[in-house]
Amino acid sequence: MKAARLYQYDPHLNVQLQIEEVPEPKITAPDEVIVRIGAAGLCRTDLHIIEGVWRSILDPDGKLLPYIPGHENAGWVEEVGSAVTSVKPGDAVICHPLRTCGVCLACRQGEDMYCERGVFPGLNANGGFAEYLVTNERALVKLPDGVTPADVAPLADAGLTAYRAAKRAAKLLPPGTSCVIIGIGGLGHIALQALRALCSARIIAVDISEAARQLARELGADHVLAGGPDLVAEVRELTQGGAHVVIDFVGEAGVEQQSWQMLRRGGTHFVVGYGGKLEVPTVQMIFNEMAIAGSLVGNYTELVELMDLNARGLVKVHTRQYRLGQINQAIDDFKNRRYIGRAVIIP
Amino acid sequence: MKAARLYQYDPHLNVQLQIEEVPEPKITAPDEVIVRIGAAGLCRTDLHIIEGVWRSILDPDGKLLPYIPGHENAGWVEEVGSAVTSVKPGDAVICHPLRTCGVCLACRQGEDMYCERGVFPGLNANGGFAEYLVTNERALVKLPDGVTPADVAPLADAGLTAYRAAKRAAKLLPPGTSCVIIGIGGLGHIALQALRALCSARIIAVDISEAARQLARELGADHVLAGGPDLVAEVRELTQGGAHVVIDFVGEAGVEQQSWQMLRRGGTHFVVGYGGKLEVPTVQMIFNEMAIAGSLVGNYTELVELMDLNARGLVKVHTRQYRLGQINQAIDDFKNRRYIGRAVIIP
Amino acid sequence: MKAARLYQYDPHLNVQLQIEEVPEPKITAPDEVIVRIGAAGLCRTDLHIIEGVWRSILDPDGKLLPYIPGHENAGWVEEVGSAVTSVKPGDAVICHPLRTCGVCLACRQGEDMYCERGVFPGLNANGGFAEYLVTNERALVKLPDGVTPADVAPLADAGLTAYRAAKRAAKLLPPGTSCVIIGIGGLGHIALQALRALCSARIIAVDISEAARQLARELGADHVLAGGPDLVAEVRELTQGGAHVVIDFVGEAGVEQQSWQMLRRGGTHFVVGYGGKLEVPTVQMIFNEMAIAGSLVGNYTELVELMDLNARGLVKVHTRQYRLGQINQAIDDFKNRRYIGRAVIIP
Amino acid sequence: MKAARLYQYDPHLNVQLQIEEVPEPKITAPDEVIVRIGAAGLCRTDLHIIEGVWRSILDPDGKLLPYIPGHENAGWVEEVGSAVTSVKPGDAVICHPLRTCGVCLACRQGEDMYCERGVFPGLNANGGFAEYLVTNERALVKLPDGVTPADVAPLADAGLTAYRAAKRAAKLLPPGTSCVIIGIGGLGHIALQALRALCSARIIAVDISEAARQLARELGADHVLAGGPDLVAEVRELTQGGAHVVIDFVGEAGVEQQSWQMLRRGGTHFVVGYGGKLEVPTVQMIFNEMAIAGSLVGNYTELVELMDLNARGLVKVHTRQYRLGQINQAIDDFKNRRYIGRAVIIP
Repeated sequence: MKAARLYQYDPHLNVQLQIEEVPEPKITAPDEVIVRIGAAGLCRTDLHIIEGVWRSILDPDGKLLPYIPGHENAGWVEEVGSAVTSVKPGDAVICHPLRTCGVCLACRQGEDMYCERGVFPGLNANGGFAEYLVTNERALVKLPDGVTPADVAPLADAGLTAYRAAKRAAKLLPPGTSCVIIGIGGLGHIALQALRALCSARIIAVDISEAARQLARELGADHVLAGGPDLVAEVRELTQGGAHVVIDFVGEAGVEQQSWQMLRRGGTHFVVGYGGKLEVPTVQMIFNEMAIAGSLVGNYTELVELMDLNARGLVKVHTRQYRLGQINQAIDDFKNRRYIGRAVIIP
Repeated sequence: MKAARLYQYDPHLNVQLQIEEVPEPKITAPDEVIVRIGAAGLCRTDLHIIEGVWRSILDPDGKLLPYIPGHENAGWVEEVGSAVTSVKPGDAVICHPLRTCGVCLACRQGEDMYCERGVFPGLNANGGFAEYLVTNERALVKLPDGVTPADVAPLADAGLTAYRAAKRAAKLLPPGTSCVIIGIGGLGHIALQALRALCSARIIAVDISEAARQLARELGADHVLAGGPDLVAEVRELTQGGAHVVIDFVGEAGVEQQSWQMLRRGGTHFVVGYGGKLEVPTVQMIFNEMAIAGSLVGNYTELVELMDLNARGLVKVHTRQYRLGQINQAIDDFKNRRYIGRAVIIP
Repeated sequence: MKAARLYQYDPHLNVQLQIEEVPEPKITAPDEVIVRIGAAGLCRTDLHIIEGVWRSILDPDGKLLPYIPGHENAGWVEEVGSAVTSVKPGDAVICHPLRTCGVCLACRQGEDMYCERGVFPGLNANGGFAEYLVTNERALVKLPDGVTPADVAPLADAGLTAYRAAKRAAKLLPPGTSCVIIGIGGLGHIALQALRALCSARIIAVDISEAARQLARELGADHVLAGGPDLVAEVRELTQGGAHVVIDFVGEAGVEQQSWQMLRRGGTHFVVGYGGKLEVPTVQMIFNEMAIAGSLVGNYTELVELMDLNARGLVKVHTRQYRLGQINQAIDDFKNRRYIGRAVIIP
Repeated sequence: MKAARLYQYDPHLNVQLQIEEVPEPKITAPDEVIVRIGAAGLCRTDLHIIEGVWRSILDPDGKLLPYIPGHENAGWVEEVGSAVTSVKPGDAVICHPLRTCGVCLACRQGEDMYCERGVFPGLNANGGFAEYLVTNERALVKLPDGVTPADVAPLADAGLTAYRAAKRAAKLLPPGTSCVIIGIGGLGHIALQALRALCSARIIAVDISEAARQLARELGADHVLAGGPDLVAEVRELTQGGAHVVIDFVGEAGVEQQSWQMLRRGGTHFVVGYGGKLEVPTVQMIFNEMAIAGSLVGNYTELVELMDLNARGLVKVHTRQYRLGQINQAIDDFKNRRYIGRAVIIP
C-alpha cells in the first residue's frame, strides 16, 4: 500500500515524509480490525513528532523509525479478527486514537487514555497516513448514515481533546458565568462549538489571527479579542472581575501565564496547549482559590458523544483536504498557518 | 477590657504585641453579636501579619494599626443585636472567621469566603486576642454541651482550612487510593484526622520533625515519611506509580515542587501552605492530566461539619494553652517550633 | 391599595376573589422591602389554594382568610428597611417566592426552599395580586435594563420550578441521551427552553393539546407526541430502549405511572406535577436501577441563572395579560385552558 | 465434577438441589477462564430462583433446567484462554457476578451491570455450586496474599450490592447527617461496615432479630432499633426531623413504605431489597423533594474497592460454612434464619 513515512527527526522541520509502497498490515490477534483509511487529520502533534519533541517518550530505544504517523483516522472496516462482533467489513468508522486492553482498572473505569497497555497508532505504532491501518475493536465508533470519514477524521483526536476540555469546563459554567477560549485553531474552534452545545455561558474567544476571530464570531462567540499584553485587563473588565473558566489551547508564549491571571476567585484554568511553563506563587493559588488542570485527549464515551453532536449538526470541523502525495505541502501550510481549521489527508 | 495589640510590622518578628486596656466593642447593627472570648488560636498567619506579609492587602491605607489580631475564636455570647434570633447570651459558640453579608451571590451559594462585603476580624478588623470580640450572627456555630471554647478554638480557622482541603480530597479518594499529607503541624494533624473520618484511602504523612511524625502515627497514618530529596521517589514506590492526591500544608522550600511530581496520572495536588512558587511545564500538566488546586478556609457548612466530627471524637485539636499575658512567649515558642499542634490564648 | 382577596375555600372553584381596597403593607423589620407590583403570574397552585387543597398545610388554624394570593411577583422597589443595601427605590426586581432567614443551615447551604423560618407570600402570607407586596432583601433579583416585570413575573415560581427540574435533568443528559417532557404548559414550555439551553439531549415533548404541541415544535423539541395509552411504547421505540430522563409536569391521571415505565435502565423520573399516586413494585426499582425524584421550586441562585437565560433570549415566557379587575376571568380561562403559556395579572 | 443442580421450580421451596457428577466446563473463547471454586455464597436470590420468581426473566424458553446455581464465587484460576494476560493458573480470585463484553457503551462507561451481552453465571448460565466454573477474564479480581476464597465469596454479589448502595449513600452523607439501614442480614451487615468506612454519618440500624441487632452494635451502629409500627416516629425523633438517607434491604412487608416516610426534606431512599410495592402520592415526592432510587449489584471497580476495604480489615463477612453435599441443609437453615451473616458452600 501507499504510505507516508518518517525517516528522521528534525527540530527545524525541514525533513520530508517519504511517500512509498509498504506492506499492508495484517490481523494478528482476535480483537484486531483493519481499517481502510478515508481521511487522516494533520495535527500539531505530528509536527512535534517530526521535530523530535516526543522522541524520548515515544521512541526511547530509537527503533521506531521509519514509521507512519497519522493519529486522527476515519475510514471503512476492511477486515476483522475472529472475536470481533460489533463491526463488520464495509462499516464506516472513526478510530479512537488509543488501542486499549479493556482489562486494566483504567479501562474498567472508562478512562481509556490511562490504559496500562495502550497503543497509540500514529504515535508509537504505524498510523493513518496510509491506505490501511490496524487497530482493535474497542477503538471503533460507527459513523451514522450520511457521515463520511473526510468530514470527521479530525474529531478523532483534535476534536476529542477539545471536547473533553469543553465538557469539563461546561460542568463549571451555569448560566451567568463566562469562559475564555484562547486559540481558535484546530482544537479551539471545536471547543467553542462544543461549549455552545453543552451550556449557556458567555464565551470570550481569543486569537491573534483575524481569520480565526472571524470564524469565532460565526460560531457564536459572545466576545472576540485579539490577545496581547492587555488581555488580562480586557477579560477582567468584560467579566466584571475575572472569568470562571479559561481554556488555553496555546500553552506557550506567555499565554499560559496570562490564563490563570484572568480568573476570578474559585476559577479554573484548563491547560490543553503546551510548550511553555507555568510559574505561579502558591499564595496566589490560595488567595484566589483557583485550580489549574491539564486536559488530555478524551475517552471512548466522549468520542461517542462528540460524534452525536456532529450528527446533529452542532459541531462541525472546518477542513481543507490534501491528497496523501501532498502531505509535505500540508505540513508546510500548517507551519505557516495558511488555512484555518484542520487539514485532512486523503489516501 | 484587656487586649493584645499590634503597633508596628516587623519582618524579623522582633516586635511584641502590647497587652493593654482598650474600650470594649459595642453593638452597632441589628445582626451583631458580642462574644466573650474563651480561647483564641495562634496561627502562622498571625506571624505573617506581624511580619507585614499581608500589609498591602489588609492595610493598604496604613490605618489598621494599632489593632487586635486573633482570628480563631471561640467563647460565649455576651450580647446580641436586635435582629438576632438564633443565639442568646450565655450560649457557647465558635466563630466562623468571616462576618458575611448573606445577600451577595457568593453568600447565597454558601461560599462565605467569597462574600463581597466580608469582614475578617483578626485580619482586617479587631480580633480575638482580647476579652471581647464583635462579630455577627451568621458567623456563629453553637457548641454542643460539654465542649468548651478552649478545646476547639483552633478549629475556627486552622481546622476549617484543613477540613475543607480534606473534604475536597476525600471526594477523589475511593478505597484503594493513596493520599499524601505534607506537614503534620497545626493544619496537617487535623487534615489527617478529617481524612480518616471521611474516607478509607491510604494516608502517607510527611514531616521533617520526629515529634510530628510520631503524632501522625498515633492519629492513624498508614505510612510516615521524613521528607527530603528522595521524597518523590519514596512516594512513587509506596504507591506503585504515584499518589492520587497530595495535600501540601507547607507550600514553600521546594515542597511545592515535589508535591505535583509525586502524583499519578489524573492526580490532584491541593495547595494550602504558601510562600513558594510553582513552576510546572505545561506539557507535564497535560501528559499526566494533573490538577493543581488552591484551597482556602472553609465555609460555614464546613465548620458545622467539622464541629460534628469533633463532637463525635473523630477530630481533636492538640493544643497548648497560654494566658493572654503570655502571648509573646507563645509567638516565640511557635517560631521555634517548641510545641506540636496548636497554641491557644486564654484571656 | 387595590387587592384581590380570597374569603372562602371552594373545591368546585365557583368562588370569586374580591377586588377591594385594603391598607398598604408597612415595613416592620430592617431587612424588609416594599415592592410595587408590575405583574403577578397566575399559577395552578392558586387554583388549588382556592379549592382548599393546601388548607391543612397553609392555614391549619383557619386564620389565614381573607388574604391576597399571588406568588409569582415582579415589580419595582418602593421602599426599603434600614439594613437593606443591595436594592434601592425604583429598581426593577423579580421576587424569589420565599422570604428566607439567611441564618439556618438550609439557607447557609443555598437551599432556600428548606429555610426553617421561610415565609411564602401568596401562600401563607399576603401575596402579589395587589398594588404592593412586602417581602425582604434576600428575595430580590434585580432585572437587567430593558426587561420589564410583565415579561418575567411567571419566572418567579413556574419558571423557577421548571428551571430547577431542567437543571437537575441536564446533569444526567450528555450528548446522545433523550429526555421526555410531559406537559408543555406554563412550566413545561419553560423547562423545554431551559433544557435546550443547558444541554444537547434529544427532547421528546408530550401534550394532549395540539396548541401546546405546536408550541413545543416552535421551541425546538426533537419529537412531539400526543400522549395516550401507547405513550410508553412510543417513547421506548423512539429512544431504542427507553428515555434517560423523564420530567413529568402533570403528575396525575395515570401519567405519573407511565413516566417511570418509559425509562431505560439507570434512568431518572423527575416528579413536578402532582395529584396522582406512584405505585411501583420494588423489584422494578432495582432491576432497572431507576430513580424517582421529586423536584420543588428552585433556590435563589437558580432564579439568578434563569434570569440570565431570559436576558440572553434563551428562555421566554409566553404570557397573556389580564388587569387585576379581570382576575376571576383569568382563573376561569385557566380552568378551561383557553390560553397557552401563562396568565399575568397587572394591577 | 461434583455439582448441585436445580431440576424444577417450586414456589414452596420444597424441592432439593441434586448433588451429582456433571462434565467439567471447557474453554471455548480466547478470553475465558476456568475457576476452581473455593467457596460460593448462598443468596436469597438463589431461593427466589428455586421458587421460580425469576423464571420469566432468566428462563423464558424453559430451557435453562437442569442447571447449577451459585453466583457468589471465589476460588483459584485453573485454566485460561489464549488471549488472557492478567491472571494465570493458581491465582486466587473473586468473580464479579457478570461476564461482560467490554465493547458495548455500558461496558465502556464502567457500568458492567448494564452490559448488552452480559452473562450471569448462577442466574442464566451454570454457576458456582460445583467444583469448577467458567467465566471470563474481565470478571476476575485477584485476591491479595493471605485472603482465602472462603473468607470473601459472599462479597462477590451480596457484598458488592451492599457496597454500591453504601457508596451512593455516602456521597449524600457529610458529617452531621444520619443514615438508616433497614435489615442487618447478609447485605445489611456489609453495608453498615462499608458506610462506616466511607463516611462519618450517624448510622441507625434496624432489624427485627435481636441477634442481628447485636451484630449491628458490634459493627459500630450509633443507634439500633427493632422496627415495627413506630419505626417512622422513632427515626424522626432520633434524627430531629427525619433521616437524610434510608437504605432498605428488606423491600417488602410494609418496610418499603416506612422507608420514605422517615426521610427529611431532600432525603433519599435507596431500595435494595425487593418483593413489596411502593405507593407514594406525587405531592409527597414534591413537598419533601425526596428521591427514591433502586440500587443494583455493583460494577467491577466497586468490587475492587470492596476487596481493598476487606484487605484492610474494614469490611468482613460473617460466614457459616457448609459442604457442597450439605447445600439443601444450608437452604433450609437460611429459610428459617438459623444463622446470621452469610452461608458459603465449599465444594
